[in-house]
Amino acid sequence: MLPLSGLHVVDLCTYVAGPSACMTLAQLGADVVRVDPIGGATDTRRLPLAPGGRSLYWAGLNRGKRSIEVDLRSEAGRDVVRGLLAVPGDGHGILVTNAVGQAWLRHAALLEVRPDLIQVQIGGRADGRPAVDYTVNCEVGLPWVTGPVDASAPVNHVLPAWDLITGAHAALAVVSAERLRRATGAPQLVEINLADVAVATMAHLGFVADVVVNGSQRLREGNYLYGSYGCDFPTADARRVMVVALTNRHWNNLIRLTGTEDVLAAMEKALGVDFAAEEARYRYRDVISALLRPWFEQRTHADVVAALEGAHILWGDYRTIEEMTRSGDGLLATSGLFTEVDDPALGRYPVPLPVARPSGWAPPVPGPAPAVGADTGNVLSDWLGLSGSEAAGLAETGAVRLPV
Amino acid sequence: MLPLSGLHVVDLCTYVAGPSACMTLAQLGADVVRVDPIGGATDTRRLPLAPGGRSLYWAGLNRGKRSIEVDLRSEAGRDVVRGLLAVPGDGHGILVTNAVGQAWLRHAALLEVRPDLIQVQIGGRADGRPAVDYTVNCEVGLPWVTGPVDASAPVNHVLPAWDLITGAHAALAVVSAERLRRATGAPQLVEINLADVAVATMAHLGFVADVVVNGSQRLREGNYLYGSYGCDFPTADARRVMVVALTNRHWNNLIRLTGTEDVLAAMEKALGVDFAAEEARYRYRDVISALLRPWFEQRTHADVVAALEGAHILWGDYRTIEEMTRSGDGLLATSGLFTEVDDPALGRYPVPLPVARPSGWAPPVPGPAPAVGADTGNVLSDWLGLSGSEAAGLAETGAVRLPV
Repeated sequence: MLPLSGLHVVDLCTYVAGPSACMTLAQLGADVVRVDPIGGATDTRRLPLAPGGRSLYWAGLNRGKRSIEVDLRSEAGRDVVRGLLAVPGDGHGILVTNAVGQAWLRHAALLEVRPDLIQVQIGGRADGRPAVDYTVNCEVGLPWVTGPVDASAPVNHVLPAWDLITGAHAALAVVSAERLRRATGAPQLVEINLADVAVATMAHLGFVADVVVNGSQRLREGNYLYGSYGCDFPTADARRVMVVALTNRHWNNLIRLTGTEDVLAAMEKALGVDFAAEEARYRYRDVISALLRPWFEQRTHADVVAALEGAHILWGDYRTIEEMTRSGDGLLATSGLFTEVDDPALGRYPVPLPVARPSGWAPPVPGPAPAVGADTGNVLSDWLGLSGSEAAGLAETGAVRLPV
Repeated sequence: MLPLSGLHVVDLCTYVAGPSACMTLAQLGADVVRVDPIGGATDTRRLPLAPGGRSLYWAGLNRGKRSIEVDLRSEAGRDVVRGLLAVPGDGHGILVTNAVGQAWLRHAALLEVRPDLIQVQIGGRADGRPAVDYTVNCEVGLPWVTGPVDASAPVNHVLPAWDLITGAHAALAVVSAERLRRATGAPQLVEINLADVAVATMAHLGFVADVVVNGSQRLREGNYLYGSYGCDFPTADARRVMVVALTNRHWNNLIRLTGTEDVLAAMEKALGVDFAAEEARYRYRDVISALLRPWFEQRTHADVVAALEGAHILWGDYRTIEEMTRSGDGLLATSGLFTEVDDPALGRYPVPLPVARPSGWAPPVPGPAPAVGADTGNVLSDWLGLSGSEAAGLAETGAVRLPV
């Protein structure tokens, strides 16, 4: 038995936030059915593609689900979706969608087919205007404080962080709403907007209060870690490491290893500060880094790594994406989280187990993502009880497409 | 009634991931008690600080919780924590912690006091080595593909995205594990590591498969949106906007507005490509941007914004953190999610409601974060049933500290 065994989720989502939410639910044991428009949604062929033209990106966000291919513009197709939501039973009647503003998907309209529907709706902005990760990120100010100190232009992030955080909160909203429905029997509508997630997170991290209370805002400071001591250093052989001293133990280990205790003590005395306070380490980060840098520049990467490990210093290695993926000591290999999946349409490559490593249940083994519409027949049978000929009849009307 | 009403969570967490997980649980209705060491943990005074010296960062991640101040190095203090976990009742016996590797917090040891304990443990790496957001991010390769195309050094992210994603998954793990415990009565241990979250996310987004299947990896491409068309443009008055054309509707609106239809059509013909395919827009992003840029450079920001809005183009404005916070049309104001909180120790500033906007329940109204140890007395009374004199006796032993 899995934590979400018995939950049946209709996933009417595109791009990152919604699909990742529903994939997470599937990893926890929910039965997730993607509803795809005929031919697949706009993100079905998104880069990167495998040699055969199928999307590795789409596959990565839709594992562990089934896909049913429905003509979402026809009433007959919409009736199929309404039918999926109306399936009786405690664990049915759950919709996650980022299709906002469509009349047929309004919560009030769907309550007519499922009076205790759980609907989690992922939107752009609270006022209904559309937004995606890339148009939200620029609005929170982070691109102006990302990148080299002397950069003159904003620097976008590459990771769609707002999508991913929103997706995880959407999954949580489903499970939380279902807990409440079991207690009260009442329907649940939860709206989560990318822009809300972004601005609320900026508040949680103190960015907003800093402006309002102190009248100050975070400056661009390169690769430094704000508020404490963290800096990247090049090694003699042009590799690079990130070193972090959050606690006094980290700090003491770092200055002992680099032989900078005496000079830093003299500096503390002359400046009248105490680097045992992380605020002081942060304020004097430039001079600290200038003192530490020669130690790194005079050693090869291998020597630096061995010394950092031996001294129990908190550090990270700058790797390329390829090194992360292929190196024997890269994050992929050392996580132990990956198993090789052989996808007939995409090839053989490693796929991760869920990030939540449980001792009380066995997560589903990773497998290929479905082809769009691969499960139309079996979902019509499993969820709606349609016979093969009934499904074929429905396909003839054009409401659904059966796999060939 | 709230979705997580009846859940009682012990939050033994520092920094971002764990505290944000437990704050999210509190926003959904859980009763969350932070266990703080005497004087507060290492992150209690993290920047930014309010004028009085209290941390705005810490306050942002610990709202809606109570705080009990315990000597975690003494057996008597640890007995208090074990007592909090052993409180009878279905919704008790839930621990979230990022204190890994401490013998007294091992799951097997804690099962002796609470046989059906739910324990969600947030770690650094799967092999037990420590890691923080900043030491994980460099290992996944993103800093080498973030920032200007001609940058020679890696560019760190400023948002601790891995912490935040991990935190949201930890909250989900609590609620999911509790669902399973109610069904089976069995204890649950779930481990979530920052490094796992990072590398698994890189796999979900297709980065890993691209390396293994295609032998290619993402290149540094500045502020472009990978795989489709998205680019930032300066305006005549030196402001900046991000424009995104994910769908053909977006694309057609954009080229119609900028009057580039004919030249792009001629280019499509000459190159033998079709910009209706986002892959083609992505491949020719530089030449497309060069054609679009004059339209933006010849107009003021106000004119550009009015035209983009009128043409229903998907776009975002580059704002500073201060503009996000203070502008009447910034994300904070337009979200409608914030209420002003008057915190006696920190000042008056806006604090967000939960990002999940429900129709079926009323989220708790945001309030100040607790001072460290502010609730020691009432938690000892509520959870453990101690009288005032019993609590005072415990404080005399040094196991806990009562607020003055």
